[in-house]
This record gives sequence, structure tokens and C-alpha cells, in this order.
Amino acid sequence: MSACVFCEILARRAPGSFVFEDEACAAFMDIQPVTEGHVLVVPRRHAAGLADLSPEEGGRLFRAAQRVAAALRASGLPCEGVNFFLADGEAAGQEVFHVHLHVFARHTGDGFGLRFGPRYGRRPGREELDQLAGRLRAHLA
Amino acid sequence: MSACVFCEILARRAPGSFVFEDEACAAFMDIQPVTEGHVLVVPRRHAAGLADLSPEEGGRLFRAAQRVAAALRASGLPCEGVNFFLADGEAAGQEVFHVHLHVFARHTGDGFGLRFGPRYGRRPGREELDQLAGRLRAHLA
Repeated sequence: MSACVFCEILARRAPGSFVFEDEACAAFMDIQPVTEGHVLVVPRRHAAGLADLSPEEGGRLFRAAQRVAAALRASGLPCEGVNFFLADGEAAGQEVFHVHLHVFARHTGDGFGLRFGPRYGRRPGREELDQLAGRLRAHLA
Repeated sequence: MSACVFCEILARRAPGSFVFEDEACAAFMDIQPVTEGHVLVVPRRHAAGLADLSPEEGGRLFRAAQRVAAALRASGLPCEGVNFFLADGEAAGQEVFHVHLHVFARHTGDGFGLRFGPRYGRRPGREELDQLAGRLRAHLA
């Protein structure tokens, strides 16, 4: 089995600049930050994707991210806002297959933004939205 | 007090295409979707930003988002991956000031992506990362 780089960091076999740790998760600095204050929050237990993460672990991950967000705002680093971003699956941009929630500081002029596909901006009618919602509800019962 | 559009949707005074509801949160289709399967997960209680959201509510939000992600993957909609995105504060791109976690399906060629500032790609040294981590740890005690 090839080593997971986040498991290596959690086990202190690879370097990590830790911000937070509890029984369920840990947070450390991203090595290629989007802005100066860019933290990754990860579950302690190896979980490749969202489907491998228990609801309890997911909840703990978000709560840790809330604490990191508050710390970014209080830290004195340039931080007028905060983004959370998570990529689940290669098509979504996931590169390390151990669930991680990106938490990063935002400030005016930081250059970060979202790119959209050519169809973005179209507003589907209510009927179309209701149909889509129905398809999803069928899998949420 | 001006009405919050998400509170109006939750109260059924404005239209919403609901996917999920429990005591803590609800999920409905985004009216300007990034991809066909784009859902917003919101707390029932009005909370403008992350700092106004209790840890319990935050945890519930993420757990609901996990369920929505699984439904997107199972739905038959184009979904090879899923992104979560949250904007906290105007500088982070927040437009509706009622916390919402975007959950959207991703597929090859969907055109979505992230834009980065001119300094992106730089890898700070370990000493710099450790210093940043120390500043954040001081606010996470």
C-alpha cells in the first residue's frame, strides 16, 4: 500500500505545521497556499473521500474548520473573509485522496476567484429545478 | 429589518425546490447553478456568517451536505465528483448573508475551476509555515 501523505503528516513521519488537533481531526498549513492563511482540516482516520467519512467525522471536520476560520480572522493576517473548499473525486479537483477541507483567508485584491463554464448564468425555470430536486430527493429518503 | 431571501424560502414565502430538510437545516436547488446538480445547504435558524453559527449547527450542515453529495452521485445526473464551497464575508464572495454551503456535481469538461492570484505557486519554507501556524494556534487555544 502506498503511503498517504496526510497520514504521514498526522503520524509525524512527514513535516507539517499544525494549527489544531483533537481526537477526530487535525489542521495544518497548506504547502502551496492560495493566500497567506491557508489551512487544511483533515480527519485523523484515513478516509479517501466523502463516502468514506462517517457523519460524525464530517461534523467534527466542519466544526474544526469553523474554529480555524475564527482564528484566521483574529490572527492579524490579511483576512476580510474566509472560504471553505472541498474537492471530492478527481473530476472535482481532488489531488490527495484523504478528505481535506481547505480553509483560507480572503482579502480585497487577493486574486482568488471561481471560473465558470459557458452555460453559467442561465437560470433554469422553477419546473426544471423542481424536477432536479425530485431526482435528488429520491436518493435522500 | 429587510427580509432574508433564504429565510423567506425556508418559510415558504418565496419559491424553493427542496431536496432535504431536518430540524437543523434544509437544502434546495441553487437558482443560478454552476452545473446541473447544484444545491445550497443552509441552517434553518438565520445566521449571517460562520461566527453566528453554533458548532452544533455547523456540524449538522456538513452532515446534510455529505448526504446531498451522495444523492448527487446516485442521481444519474452528470456527476463524477462533488465540490463543497462556502463564502464567509463579502471579500470571500458571500452574496446572501445567511450561511450556505454550496454542493455541486462536477464532471469532465464542465468548465468550472479556481482562479489564483499572481503569487500562487510559491511554496513558503517550513519556517514561514511554522510561524504562520503559531500565529493561528495562539487563537485556537
